[in-house]
Order: sequence, then C-alpha cells, then structure tokens
Amino acid sequence: MDRRGFIKGAGTGLVAAGGINAPAVIAQPQRFRLNLLTSWPASLDNLYGTAEYFARRIEAMTDGEVRARTSPGGAEVGPTEVYDAVSSGAFEACHTAPYYFIGKNPAHGFFTSLPFGMTLEQQNAWMTAGNGQALWDELNAQDNLIAFPGGNTSAQCGGWFNVEINSPEDLQGLRMRFPGHGGRAMAKAGVNIQQLPGGEVFTAMERGALDAAEWVGPYDDQILGMQDVAQYYYLPSWAEPSAMLGFYFNLDVWNRFPADIQAQIRACCAEANNWMAAQYLAKNPIALQELEAGGVSVRDFPDPVLAAFREGADEVHAEDMERADYARIYEDWSAFRDRLRGWDRMNSYRYREFIYRDAD
Amino acid sequence: MDRRGFIKGAGTGLVAAGGINAPAVIAQPQRFRLNLLTSWPASLDNLYGTAEYFARRIEAMTDGEVRARTSPGGAEVGPTEVYDAVSSGAFEACHTAPYYFIGKNPAHGFFTSLPFGMTLEQQNAWMTAGNGQALWDELNAQDNLIAFPGGNTSAQCGGWFNVEINSPEDLQGLRMRFPGHGGRAMAKAGVNIQQLPGGEVFTAMERGALDAAEWVGPYDDQILGMQDVAQYYYLPSWAEPSAMLGFYFNLDVWNRFPADIQAQIRACCAEANNWMAAQYLAKNPIALQELEAGGVSVRDFPDPVLAAFREGADEVHAEDMERADYARIYEDWSAFRDRLRGWDRMNSYRYREFIYRDAD
Repeated sequence: MDRRGFIKGAGTGLVAAGGINAPAVIAQPQRFRLNLLTSWPASLDNLYGTAEYFARRIEAMTDGEVRARTSPGGAEVGPTEVYDAVSSGAFEACHTAPYYFIGKNPAHGFFTSLPFGMTLEQQNAWMTAGNGQALWDELNAQDNLIAFPGGNTSAQCGGWFNVEINSPEDLQGLRMRFPGHGGRAMAKAGVNIQQLPGGEVFTAMERGALDAAEWVGPYDDQILGMQDVAQYYYLPSWAEPSAMLGFYFNLDVWNRFPADIQAQIRACCAEANNWMAAQYLAKNPIALQELEAGGVSVRDFPDPVLAAFREGADEVHAEDMERADYARIYEDWSAFRDRLRGWDRMNSYRYREFIYRDAD
Repeated sequence: MDRRGFIKGAGTGLVAAGGINAPAVIAQPQRFRLNLLTSWPASLDNLYGTAEYFARRIEAMTDGEVRARTSPGGAEVGPTEVYDAVSSGAFEACHTAPYYFIGKNPAHGFFTSLPFGMTLEQQNAWMTAGNGQALWDELNAQDNLIAFPGGNTSAQCGGWFNVEINSPEDLQGLRMRFPGHGGRAMAKAGVNIQQLPGGEVFTAMERGALDAAEWVGPYDDQILGMQDVAQYYYLPSWAEPSAMLGFYFNLDVWNRFPADIQAQIRACCAEANNWMAAQYLAKNPIALQELEAGGVSVRDFPDPVLAAFREGADEVHAEDMERADYARIYEDWSAFRDRLRGWDRMNSYRYREFIYRDAD
C-alpha cells in the first residue's frame, strides 16, 4: 500500500513522472498525532520515561511523520482510567499496566504478572514465540483495543514493612497496600489488604494507617521515599517475578495506520520493552545499595511465609479458573511456563547455583 | 533532514504545493539494497531465520524502501570471513557472532559471551542501559564497522560427549570441538581442543575423530543430528550462559543512511534480538524432551568439573587482561555484571530456589 496515497485520498493527487530517474518529489508529510496517556507520575523516570522514549523513537523513525504527546497519570484522566479512555476513542493510546484492569477481567493479569508466574525472559518468550500476543489480542479486541508489550520492571520486590515477617502468623491482620492478584493472594494468607492509589501510599505509611506497602522496586521506591516511612524491605518478589506493561491503541485508530506505520510502532514498542527492563536491571542494584547504606534493613521472606503466599495464590487462582476465558489462557500460559522452568532449572538456574556457591 | 531530498539530490525536484490540504504526491521511492551475509547454514532456522526476520521487518517498516537480501554462510564468503568482507566494503552488512573474531581481538568476546559471564537479561541490560554499546562502537569503528545486538541464543549447553565426565580427570586429553574463550578455558583444564568449522563437527564425531563437541543447544543440535553421534548431553552452559549475535554494517554504508532509516534499522535489530531469544527459549525445552525420548542421556556437570572450567577461564582471562583494550572493557563489564548478580541472587534467583524446592 502506498502510504501517501492512502493518507491523503487516492486519485486526487499530483503524480510525479515515474521511473528510476524521476526528479525528487518533496511531499508535505502527513502528521499522525497520538495523545499517549500514561498511568505514571512524571517523577518516575523509568515508567513515565518509557512513554517518553517511545515518543522520541517513533518521531526519529518516521522523520516526524508520527508524533506522540505523553501525559502523566491524572493530567488528562486518572491513572487507572486510561484503558476506558482509549477504549472509548476519547484518546488514541495509553501506556499502562494490564493488571490494573483485572477488575474488568482477571485474565488481564497474564499480561503483567501472576503470583509465582513468569520471569522476564519467560514472559518475553511467551509473548513473542508463544501464543501470548494472540491471546492478548483476543482479550483486548473485546474492548476495541490492541496492545503490545511496552516495558517490563523485571523482578519487583516483596514490599516495605514496619514489622518483621518471621512466620505466616506475622501476616495476620497486617494492613498492607498490594495491588492485583498478589494482593488477593495475601488477603487469603490473612493480610488486611487496602486499595490505595500509588500517590497516597507514602502518606498512609507515614501516618501509620498502613503497616506495609508494595510499589515497584529499589529505584522507583527510593524516588517515592519509601525508605523514610518503612524499616524493612523484603525480597524476593513472589507476586511479580516480572511485570510487563503495555502500549494500548484504540483499534479504530490502529486500523487506520498504513502497514508501514504499524510496523514502525510495533518496533518502537519492542525497543521500549527492552529499554525499560534494561533500565531497571541496571539501576535497581545501585538503588538498593544506597537504601541499605541509608539504614534500610533488607530481609528475605522465610520459606514458610512464601509457602503461605503460594497457598493464597492457589486459592485465588482456583476462583479465577471458574471463568472460561481465564482458564483458556491459563492452560496455554502454564504449559509454556512449566516447560521453560524445567529447562531453566537444569541450565540457567544451575549455572547460577554454581557461581553463587563458588563466590561464597 | 528530509529523506527524499537527501537521497535524490536537493534542488532538482518537482515540489508539491505546500500546506495541510496539499494533494497526494506519489514519489518514486528510493530503494536501499543491503546484501546481508550470514555465518549460518539455511537449515538452522533460528540463526539464519533471524537474518530473514530482519529482512522481512525492515521491508515492512520502510514500505519496501529498504530491502535486505540474506545469504547463508559460505554462499558468498566463508562463515567467519563475513567480518572482513563487510569491513572492507565488499558487502554492506552481515549477521554473525562477535566471538568468532576473538583472534583479531579477544575483546570481541564481550559481545557474545565470556565463560562465567552474563545471562540474557544481564547482557541486554549492559548493551542498553550500561556502556556495552558505546564500548562495542569503539571496538568496531577500528575496522570501519558498526554493529547492534541481533539475537541471542539464550543459555547454550555444556556439550555432547561420548564419555562420562565424572571428575576433572575425565577431561584430560579429551578431543573436543569448542570455539571461543570457552575452548581456551577447556584447553587449560586439559581438554585437547580441535578447531573445526561447524559443518564438519558431525562427520568428525561420527568417525570418532572427536570425543566431544559443542554447538548451540537442543533445538539447533537436534537439526544437526548430534543425537546420532553422541550419547551424553551435558549441562549447564558455563561458557555461554547467553550468547549475543550482531548485525554489522560497513560504517560508510551506515553513515550514508538518513537518520530515520538508521532509526528503523536499529529498531529492527532490537526486534530481532528479542525474537531470536524468544524462539530458543520456546523451542529448546521441547527439543530436549524429544532428545531424551530418543535415548540421549542428559547429565549435569559435577561441581568439581565446573570448578576446573572456572580455573581454566581465570587463566585465559589473566592472559587477555594484558591487553589494555580488553582490560578497559572488562572493568566496565565485570562491575556491571557483579552488581546485577548480587541483585539477582537475592531476588530472581531466590524466587526460583523457592519454586523449584516447592515443586519437589
């Protein structure tokens, strides 16, 4: 398809004389403008920065033919209202976390993370070489949307606590902010889960209305100042062993793009997906060292506590499996994950086991 | 910069009337043709397939303005002669493994893998959010080249053996094909390393001229038929915990591309980098199950054997550190790797430790 003809309406045009040696034709480039909503405060420069990165790259790639204007969560619509705003066609696109929308359908969780779910490399493999993208397309098309992987936080953290967690008993009645399926699993394990917007977490912790909270990981949490309102930082992340974000497009908007622009946008999303994960992997270890130097106590969840989360996650999962659309995706997702786990365990995990033991 | 003006020579052209409502102008698109050499036989559809994937994507993204013609290793120049062929300007581009060129400079190894080096996510992070790309640019510019990450095999394997490896003594005098720094490390551990092109490995194993050989991993090795000439398949891969490939461009060719084409090519490389790793992660576990079902015995290197490889790798490394350019990259690479290892160990590795123990 010829893009310029498509955009401006065929048959009305001035057509340059054909042939290899035709003189230069300077077409007035058509501008595609995308309002790209996000769910992020501009202060979180990895999350919001990924939307900005996308905007820079798509402009460079199209020589300015596509321009995206990013806006922080809340500036145009609320951070978790972006899905509806793009679904309705009020805005063209957004950058958000699919699992913010598990209230609409728990199946959205597969496209960010599920408790005891996939690592970064496994999630990317499922989306790219498994059925992940096709299953996501089906889910999103129900709301007149299409989305592509748009960044990953890599492994997050277990959360910030103002009490020590030495056994499952310590979880009982604990007031904690923890979103998504992970929060539901913790509730089953006895935690009193509070649903609070990210922006209110710091204040709630500061005035003692919360005992614990989870946000992302060392780099982002340090920006939010969690180290000033909590003592203990627990690892590992059992609920978000990786957490994929997405660039969502209104399906009518998407279908109006010529095929080459679609290909460019998809490539931009792939670049952004890699870029964000790389940023977190590079910056989290440095931020964690700074947090520890500043007095934060980094702790490891004891196995019985992880087992309690595991039981809670299994209960949540059993509830969700009653939905046929969730169950259908789960079958594909879990078979893929389990195959890759077997291979990881005997190869990449075993490699780490040796080098970590060797380092001691 | 206006691409069409740049390509065809400014000032000679037919210029469409400006303004938003200007009629369509169908320009004769300039074609950039890239001869893209590879180091791979066409039968290896993940390796060679990545070059083909790049060709499909760049054509879609540029609406045919850039077309890449791929060719298997040996069709135009030998599999490991592609670097020189692009460096000299005889060909525009190639897809190959940087560590094939450690004979020119051992520093090329950092851009595929080093023994006991980085995992897939660590390598991607170093290239994208660390100094990896800048250091690679410096190295390649010496040969009038520029290259971008162009796929990763993810973790490879320890190799195929016709003898059991129960202790470091079993390595002594073993005739094995193993390329790169890994082969040098094994030689220090007593292995009799043979340098053979990939295409000759099968025959050498079949007629007993080799006791052992390493190629990539289950999916590729099965295509090559290694299961027909060896009994034991050893894991984990200590020499190639990930193995990055690259798309190389002659620097003069690269510099002649307009900025938007450069951005499109880089995005294509990023897509291909993710695509290849995803393919291997998805397909290796299935191939390994098939190999085992066919009678291959999958074995785990005992720790003392891995320790012998580790000592060998340390000796090789000490030799290479005498080169200032290698030492300079090593300093950056190892600091990055060690930070990410610390973080991995307490988070993503610890997560796996729990789920694998829980699964038993």
